[in-house]
Amino acid sequence: MRNLLDIMDLSTDELDSLIKTALDIKDHPEKYADACKRKKLATLFFEPSTRTRLSFEAAMYELGGNVIGFSESSSSSAAKGESVADTVKVVSNYADIIAMRHPKDGAALVAVRNANVPVINAGDGGHHHPTQTLADLLTIYREKGGFRGLTIGLCGDLKYGRTVHSLVYAMSRYEGVNFVFISPEELRFPRYIIDDVLEKNGIPYLETSDLEEAIPKLDILYMTRIQRERFLDLNEYERLKDSYILTPEKLISAKKDMAILHPLPRVNEISVALDKDPRAKYFEQTLNGKYMRMALILKLLGLDGKPSDETEDTVRDVIYDRFRCPNHRCITTTEQELRQEFYSVDEEQGVYRCVYCDTEIRK
Amino acid sequence: MRNLLDIMDLSTDELDSLIKTALDIKDHPEKYADACKRKKLATLFFEPSTRTRLSFEAAMYELGGNVIGFSESSSSSAAKGESVADTVKVVSNYADIIAMRHPKDGAALVAVRNANVPVINAGDGGHHHPTQTLADLLTIYREKGGFRGLTIGLCGDLKYGRTVHSLVYAMSRYEGVNFVFISPEELRFPRYIIDDVLEKNGIPYLETSDLEEAIPKLDILYMTRIQRERFLDLNEYERLKDSYILTPEKLISAKKDMAILHPLPRVNEISVALDKDPRAKYFEQTLNGKYMRMALILKLLGLDGKPSDETEDTVRDVIYDRFRCPNHRCITTTEQELRQEFYSVDEEQGVYRCVYCDTEIRK
Amino acid sequence: MRNLLDIMDLSTDELDSLIKTALDIKDHPEKYADACKRKKLATLFFEPSTRTRLSFEAAMYELGGNVIGFSESSSSSAAKGESVADTVKVVSNYADIIAMRHPKDGAALVAVRNANVPVINAGDGGHHHPTQTLADLLTIYREKGGFRGLTIGLCGDLKYGRTVHSLVYAMSRYEGVNFVFISPEELRFPRYIIDDVLEKNGIPYLETSDLEEAIPKLDILYMTRIQRERFLDLNEYERLKDSYILTPEKLISAKKDMAILHPLPRVNEISVALDKDPRAKYFEQTLNGKYMRMALILKLLGLDGKPSDETEDTVRDVIYDRFRCPNHRCITTTEQELRQEFYSVDEEQGVYRCVYCDTEIRK
Repeated sequence: MRNLLDIMDLSTDELDSLIKTALDIKDHPEKYADACKRKKLATLFFEPSTRTRLSFEAAMYELGGNVIGFSESSSSSAAKGESVADTVKVVSNYADIIAMRHPKDGAALVAVRNANVPVINAGDGGHHHPTQTLADLLTIYREKGGFRGLTIGLCGDLKYGRTVHSLVYAMSRYEGVNFVFISPEELRFPRYIIDDVLEKNGIPYLETSDLEEAIPKLDILYMTRIQRERFLDLNEYERLKDSYILTPEKLISAKKDMAILHPLPRVNEISVALDKDPRAKYFEQTLNGKYMRMALILKLLGLDGKPSDETEDTVRDVIYDRFRCPNHRCITTTEQELRQEFYSVDEEQGVYRCVYCDTEIRK
Repeated sequence: MRNLLDIMDLSTDELDSLIKTALDIKDHPEKYADACKRKKLATLFFEPSTRTRLSFEAAMYELGGNVIGFSESSSSSAAKGESVADTVKVVSNYADIIAMRHPKDGAALVAVRNANVPVINAGDGGHHHPTQTLADLLTIYREKGGFRGLTIGLCGDLKYGRTVHSLVYAMSRYEGVNFVFISPEELRFPRYIIDDVLEKNGIPYLETSDLEEAIPKLDILYMTRIQRERFLDLNEYERLKDSYILTPEKLISAKKDMAILHPLPRVNEISVALDKDPRAKYFEQTLNGKYMRMALILKLLGLDGKPSDETEDTVRDVIYDRFRCPNHRCITTTEQELRQEFYSVDEEQGVYRCVYCDTEIRK
Repeated sequence: MRNLLDIMDLSTDELDSLIKTALDIKDHPEKYADACKRKKLATLFFEPSTRTRLSFEAAMYELGGNVIGFSESSSSSAAKGESVADTVKVVSNYADIIAMRHPKDGAALVAVRNANVPVINAGDGGHHHPTQTLADLLTIYREKGGFRGLTIGLCGDLKYGRTVHSLVYAMSRYEGVNFVFISPEELRFPRYIIDDVLEKNGIPYLETSDLEEAIPKLDILYMTRIQRERFLDLNEYERLKDSYILTPEKLISAKKDMAILHPLPRVNEISVALDKDPRAKYFEQTLNGKYMRMALILKLLGLDGKPSDETEDTVRDVIYDRFRCPNHRCITTTEQELRQEFYSVDEEQGVYRCVYCDTEIRK
């Protein structure tokens, strides 16, 4: 049995195989229409996320299965103080596979460790949201015929945007890819990912605050929202915000086949006037997300005709209860009787990370 | 592809055909049990309306289809500020047909203009709610064997009750129909509908504030609720309210086969003691609503065996961005990048109406 | 047509038959996979109870049926003031069977009296919750091979815990059963049930406040939560609470095959460390609940292959509108036009009970 916590849990081969299945589903939906007959997906959404939830539900119905679940925690037993662990243990008796969304970082790992059925992380706080990345990857694949050699621009809030981080991790595994990070100073792409992934592997990248200047080079432009709340200085926000709104004018110098992506919902960072531009792929992206979720459900239920993966979870030396996770959004702050658990990143320097939320501490 | 925004979008022939299909569904449900196999209905309820939602869901399941959706906007992306346009564009990738309820007048038109699948207006603010009128019409048809020559009493809040307005529009197309409007002075049936529809076509009507006096003439008595909030003078409310509560005593002089309708939910405007009276048809009305929604879904999905309608939307000369809609419940007040759009009613007099919510302005 | 309001509505034979069906479903799920094809269950949850709702929904899907409903009353017409009676009358037009949860005592009886389809009480306030008891009984049956001669310990809040009360009523019908009531003084098992059920039938029982002392005797240990709010004296709560938390240490003297049950959700009254103990059966209990709900749905829809029960409701002499129910959680306090209804328990002594919530009054 396998789960999906983080996009990096999937090998490149597994990703390729998911994409292949998704494309086959798109072309031959009738072949899959009864694939999950008599199976049930539980959508456990401890916080609302309509688009993601509806995408999973549509995916399961198109595979011939059924869906149970809840769409926010006020209507769940969580309001009575039930733990994530108990919830998934109970729901394992009601469903064959679980898609869980939770506001706390690391909640998905608690689910995986306690469920008796496969678990898909449908977003755990600001931590991971791998099925969004699957949607992004299929969109890029379909638009460009593959991943090699692409120049990928990422624009907006690159500091906090988890979808942007995951996309960089995932795309870095393909040959010849390079990145252009477009953001205000305050919201630059995190240095530790640049160090860990790009510098280490010699992957070219560029940082700029100028969207218009960057556009002509790009094969892909991945837009994200800049939230007012992220700025200490609101004057700075006012000064900057318009320069990160994509308009028809800004696209004049773009390649004719550049694809525009966005994880949605958008507020105003892409002008509605662009929706009819053939380069706008953000609605298509949601369709691709449905296909990838279908492929993923098939894979995790062992219904994709592939031998089941026997890969083990990464075995890491873990230190219990010596440190306390400083991230107040970590699931360890609320889940009952959950031990503090850290793994060593650099023992000499005393650098450790929380097993649940990956928050780094230095001792 | 067709949508249903307003009951008047349907021609008399189309209405007759829906009624015929609904009656066939009632008599031969097994013929339709797989009609929508592998199809999905999305119920997008931006405000709660349990009865309408459950009716749509039951309808879709009885046609062999599936349902996805949400039941209030706190669990939808709308809470994050997403536009109606974006929501329906995304959901078009997940479902084959949409039933949408929204608190803003005119929201349904935004949905129709952006969806790639048929849209059914399940209520847009105080504007339209055509599937309620379909339920009303089938109930009248089944009780009376047709529409001709009926005397229809409408009682209660005739000023604000959108179901009452729609019913008058719809019934006015049938020969020999006449209306009795029964309401307090404050809540009289709108003059503009009387002028537009009844006076213009020479359809007889009567206005009265006396329910008991009116009852003996009626073939149909359509009750609605009088809301306390509608009265400026609460003494007036207290004085009047009991006279618009239907009780067994008030029915003594009614015809033996008069049918009592109500859009539900009722609070106390029809005494529970009447529920067992054979003339009480308001629960049957909800069953009829389900059959009509089934017939409508079949029609809009092109599954009713009829050639698809090629009728075009009314083409109207539209004036963009010159006026601003004064209705603060209009969708133009909240939807992003939506242009103000008015059509001319009387150019000489300078009378225009908002394309979305039909609010009239004079310039 | 039959309903399930209270576990005591079921005869011992009917219980045995439900258990037999549930075991057959467990062993041969495929036999039942289409049993409810084209049937719809309505889950009307006027207050949230995720586990119970998901269990019902999973049950219906595993029988091949469909589900409509709502998960809390803010998204239902109840928010507009609709009565339980009207809601179930309408929903009877949309579904073949209803499972209803409601915060008011006695709401389930209102539903039964107004629905045109079978109604299952999925919890009415603090009154009854019979499907929880069905889950408990199947768990005991599967663990012990039957009910005779068992020593059943009940621990925690025995005063307010409705599941504990129902279990005592239900188990008292089996030969040789005896009970150990383990609770703080404030939360002792109600005297009137001891008198009515145990003393009257000569069933042995023991009352103690010492969990550790009681454990060695027990075949079943049924844990419940002690809520802080139940204590007038919070010092008393602090002093006591740990003695009613089940830990591995407290189990040292327990029988090797004692089964631990809990209605869930737990907060901390059973240590997570016990979850892996083979005696911990509280998660299995939720699985058993699903099987029993499947058996119950089949029975109430007449699909269990048994002749339908023709037993009448208990006919009781009822006194209308003479007394007023003093229980402010009784459905008679909110439901429109509902008459006060009492039955006599002891006419000489002037003891009566409310037909809806069974609250006792003395006149």
